[in-house]
Amino acid sequence: MRATTLHGPGDIRVSEVPDPVLQSPTDAIVKVTAGCVCGSDLWPYRGESDFEAGSTIGHECLGVVEEVGSEVTSFRPGDHVIVPFCHCDNTCAHCVAGVQSACTNLGMTTSGQGEYALVTQAEGSLVKLDGAPDPALVPSLLALSDVMPTGWHAAVAAGVPEGGTVVVVGDGAVGLCGVLAASVMGAEKVIAMSRHESRQQIATAFGATHLVAARGREGAAEVKEITGGIGADAVLECVGTGEAMGTAFAVARPGSTVGFVGVPHGVELPVGRMFQKNVGLRGGMAPVRRYLPELLDHVLAGRMDPGRVFDLTLPLDQAAEAYRAMDERRAIKVLLEP
Amino acid sequence: MRATTLHGPGDIRVSEVPDPVLQSPTDAIVKVTAGCVCGSDLWPYRGESDFEAGSTIGHECLGVVEEVGSEVTSFRPGDHVIVPFCHCDNTCAHCVAGVQSACTNLGMTTSGQGEYALVTQAEGSLVKLDGAPDPALVPSLLALSDVMPTGWHAAVAAGVPEGGTVVVVGDGAVGLCGVLAASVMGAEKVIAMSRHESRQQIATAFGATHLVAARGREGAAEVKEITGGIGADAVLECVGTGEAMGTAFAVARPGSTVGFVGVPHGVELPVGRMFQKNVGLRGGMAPVRRYLPELLDHVLAGRMDPGRVFDLTLPLDQAAEAYRAMDERRAIKVLLEP
Repeated sequence: MRATTLHGPGDIRVSEVPDPVLQSPTDAIVKVTAGCVCGSDLWPYRGESDFEAGSTIGHECLGVVEEVGSEVTSFRPGDHVIVPFCHCDNTCAHCVAGVQSACTNLGMTTSGQGEYALVTQAEGSLVKLDGAPDPALVPSLLALSDVMPTGWHAAVAAGVPEGGTVVVVGDGAVGLCGVLAASVMGAEKVIAMSRHESRQQIATAFGATHLVAARGREGAAEVKEITGGIGADAVLECVGTGEAMGTAFAVARPGSTVGFVGVPHGVELPVGRMFQKNVGLRGGMAPVRRYLPELLDHVLAGRMDPGRVFDLTLPLDQAAEAYRAMDERRAIKVLLEP
Repeated sequence: MRATTLHGPGDIRVSEVPDPVLQSPTDAIVKVTAGCVCGSDLWPYRGESDFEAGSTIGHECLGVVEEVGSEVTSFRPGDHVIVPFCHCDNTCAHCVAGVQSACTNLGMTTSGQGEYALVTQAEGSLVKLDGAPDPALVPSLLALSDVMPTGWHAAVAAGVPEGGTVVVVGDGAVGLCGVLAASVMGAEKVIAMSRHESRQQIATAFGATHLVAARGREGAAEVKEITGGIGADAVLECVGTGEAMGTAFAVARPGSTVGFVGVPHGVELPVGRMFQKNVGLRGGMAPVRRYLPELLDHVLAGRMDPGRVFDLTLPLDQAAEAYRAMDERRAIKVLLEP
């Protein structure tokens, strides 16, 4: 099959690789109908995290079941499905506790930017759609495989309170989905820290009530002013850098929690400040399968359109351009059509 | 008045110092009837945190109101009161949100190991007793000025679930109060990590169902075994060292929270592990005034006897011996009688 492969920093290709095959009775093969590039794919692309040269990349996709293992009984070839980026059995103690991203049988999609993807633990992971989706809904359904549940997880981890004030640090696709999550959860003030006009527009469409373009101390001072000197009731840290984390703690009111979902890179947590201000930190890899049914309801009912984060669609063959566009911040998030 | 003063590492004296005087209409002077030494007093005593040579020390006390400022209307001379170590107006936005330890008018008791203490924000801070307390209750009432609410805060911050499994790291007075808190909150399994027999006995009396004497990896492995490989539903970190924090994260199950109340000294938080396991951290200086009414009810109703953490009572004049006994771990916590 054709799939996106990473060969070195900045070296993205679409290569011919072996088709995935069932390796266990709990597996399924999904023919990808839509994939995309994640902000976290940019870390290895930039050479800032390890990868094996020549390996496939891409963990988000939507597709049609092609083949299932003998223990997969709820899905059959032809079913349209959303594929959570992290695969789980949905029955272990961690899954039952709602932490499917720590499943004892955890797996990952590894060729979501390709023609086919192997899904381990298909029975516990996949979520079936009612037939082929309306093409207009495809971006939003694709967003449910990772980016939207990740923004949602930040909001859940931060404990966004109805009627409260929320700050979202980061205006990438995850941050924008965090804005959407906070808004759907009923926050009264949603302050998006964003300085890019195209992103500000989506943030506003997603429910942001305030935009703060300044960063660092200046940005924190603006948030303090908006919150009457008190700080935010909940803060969503959607980047993963030390600077973003510092801003998050600077704007959090005493007793609040920073929800973090950006894979941390070079982050040193300010434990003294956390103690002094009683500001907590909670988050991590999103338990996508936990949130999927609820988020799917929101999308199908038209209460949520996270697909707006895709501002560029390219054929799979142009995966390299997709990465460049995101790396250079010309695109927020790129949808790839195999 | 006579008060305990710290002059250098290990140099504790009982000195003649000026009586505290009302400095603001919101102040009160309390004649101390019982004070004590806190584990956190040992940091400056050991030269491990800054202090001004010759300054008074001690932030926990019980006493009788001696004098009140003009804006203090709910208390008058002769009232028996519990003095929260952190003073608050109990009306600002942070107090109303239950974070009295971040009050915009925050104050601290600074001569609790002396004859008199100045209480700023007396109206919002003090809690009145119904006359002179039964001498048998004095230790437990004194414990409500800091150590018990601090253990309670660790349990609240960690989100101890009814019927759940809780690990308490640290068998100092705070850790023991954490055990008591988890037990009163209805935890089914309370695992106390303690290797000192006298402390193990109190932990058991406070409701610990399991004792783990081993530390580090070995201790974590024992906890894992007790929890069926899953880890604890809530972890109370009651020490403040890097080692204790490491143990806390090692035994926390995915999705759980570490509640921390030990002033952090040399702690580097494992942000990667927190992300990977979705384990949160929350805590800080306890909002004592928030918990006081509920905890006082528990003590007066006989449901809680945190005073058992005091295993040595000395006259104020022997404050130096009190510090030595705690520093050398001959005593868990020492009550000082002025």
